[in-house]
Amino acid sequence: MIGGGTGNFAVLRGLKEYPVHLSAIVSMADDGGSTGILRDELGVLPPGDVRQCLVALSNSSELMRSLMNYRFENGGFGGHSFGNLFLSSLEKVTGSFEKAVEEMGRILFIKGKVIPVTTHQVRLKMVLNNRKILEGEKEVYLSQEIDEGYKSIFLEPYSEANPHAIDEIEAADLIVVGPGGLHTSLIPNLLVEGISEALLKSKAKKIFVVNLMNRKGQTTTFKVSDYLKELVQYIGDDIFDYILVNKESPPQELIDVYAEEGSLVENDIDEQRVIAAPLLGPLKDPQKKDLIKRNLIRHDPEKLAKELMKIVPHL
Amino acid sequence: MIGGGTGNFAVLRGLKEYPVHLSAIVSMADDGGSTGILRDELGVLPPGDVRQCLVALSNSSELMRSLMNYRFENGGFGGHSFGNLFLSSLEKVTGSFEKAVEEMGRILFIKGKVIPVTTHQVRLKMVLNNRKILEGEKEVYLSQEIDEGYKSIFLEPYSEANPHAIDEIEAADLIVVGPGGLHTSLIPNLLVEGISEALLKSKAKKIFVVNLMNRKGQTTTFKVSDYLKELVQYIGDDIFDYILVNKESPPQELIDVYAEEGSLVENDIDEQRVIAAPLLGPLKDPQKKDLIKRNLIRHDPEKLAKELMKIVPHL
Repeated sequence: MIGGGTGNFAVLRGLKEYPVHLSAIVSMADDGGSTGILRDELGVLPPGDVRQCLVALSNSSELMRSLMNYRFENGGFGGHSFGNLFLSSLEKVTGSFEKAVEEMGRILFIKGKVIPVTTHQVRLKMVLNNRKILEGEKEVYLSQEIDEGYKSIFLEPYSEANPHAIDEIEAADLIVVGPGGLHTSLIPNLLVEGISEALLKSKAKKIFVVNLMNRKGQTTTFKVSDYLKELVQYIGDDIFDYILVNKESPPQELIDVYAEEGSLVENDIDEQRVIAAPLLGPLKDPQKKDLIKRNLIRHDPEKLAKELMKIVPHL
Repeated sequence: MIGGGTGNFAVLRGLKEYPVHLSAIVSMADDGGSTGILRDELGVLPPGDVRQCLVALSNSSELMRSLMNYRFENGGFGGHSFGNLFLSSLEKVTGSFEKAVEEMGRILFIKGKVIPVTTHQVRLKMVLNNRKILEGEKEVYLSQEIDEGYKSIFLEPYSEANPHAIDEIEAADLIVVGPGGLHTSLIPNLLVEGISEALLKSKAKKIFVVNLMNRKGQTTTFKVSDYLKELVQYIGDDIFDYILVNKESPPQELIDVYAEEGSLVENDIDEQRVIAAPLLGPLKDPQKKDLIKRNLIRHDPEKLAKELMKIVPHL
């Protein structure tokens, strides 16, 4: 699968239970929060998305997985995830981010592989229609003006793909793109030199897992076709054999709570390749204050994997 | 063995290669450096000494051991050892320092056990003859006036021993005390309620491994008998069947470099129980700037273990 951010988690966690070879190709554009501070202060590659994939694929104890997601509450490391520090320390000790990811994978007994899409230090940049320049994935993520249009999005410096990522794309039978933030997690992978080319050449079946929710100010009124169009633009062709969309409706109460952040993505494509299935995870209590709203409506790993595995026999 | 600080390392690392059951009982008074900051900011028990023992006993890869000793150079966590963060995060996630130590032991494939002498939050305090009060192990460690005499040394609050520490003392065939800072690593164990009583009751052979070097301002002119006398005072009786002292002389050049920090400990006890053996580790180049002077003259794990194992057949 190709992605970044929290979107990976459900796909990987779900598919992990099936007898398939899994490789997660992960965006290296993240520069917010704990990850951003580690990049700035230690000069490391961004650990956050990779850590989440490692935890998703981990067969280690519940305790180890909780440990990797543990966030310090106080002190000079307040807000940092322990797993991020783990990966960054390993990078410092081994001298290589890829080796660090491999080693952490061993420690967490992961099933499959986690592969950074590039091993170069890249920053995501976006030039909006109003000529404002968004510097870094965090600024892109926080922007409320992207839905007014943008001129360009690119990585600085333009960097070549990790050869291992290309190898995995070439070897795959099924390639899952998404779910994930369109501009912050999905497109950053396609901006790496060689990734779109590899996708175009690949003989694998390709499936686009569409996000459940739009993000206000970013993909405010997007329908499935809008997501597809924008992805296709960066890949160079419509490569998708399947498009997996959710057809389950969350309760209106939850949609209301979520409204400040975005709306449900509607499907407007009436084609055979569209698979509409119930994909929602168990609902959380929207009254709980510690929940981030965007986590209220989420993909269910099991449902997602079940639908994806229905495709596999067709290969 | 009973100790704390870096003194443990050589004994544990050396004995690890022999077919013996090892338990390290570790002082919980440390509050300097990375450990002190973690205590203050996270409210955890002191991880530093325990971490060093875990690494000493670890059978995991060289990489894992380097990782646990890795210190961040920059950022909000600059100066922190990764292993300390590991242990403290585990304590936060498990809710128990002892469980955290156990779990980290599993992850590092340690041989033997590492046991905190107490699981209470204690602070070392010392009242000097000049009525100055040293608060915390760090202040005791840095003081240059202890050799002028002190009125009392105690833990605040006075705390009971970890029952597992008592169990290990009761079950032991050989108890090794030291090497380690007299006031900062050894005596703090004896100040815990129940430890001295357990030592007095124990039928194990007991050996005191004397430090190589005196610490200026603390044990400035101490000879072996002075160390022994002070230990015995806190234990309540002279329990030692053996006293292991170094008889190897480091080159004068090294003694000169070290002179600001302290002098060699001379043996002034002429008794059968004194074992004088060459115990020095390989010499490091004193010109290297990154070396701490007190690490220039160190116990050799192999030599130390060889001498300790000579006692074991006598048991």
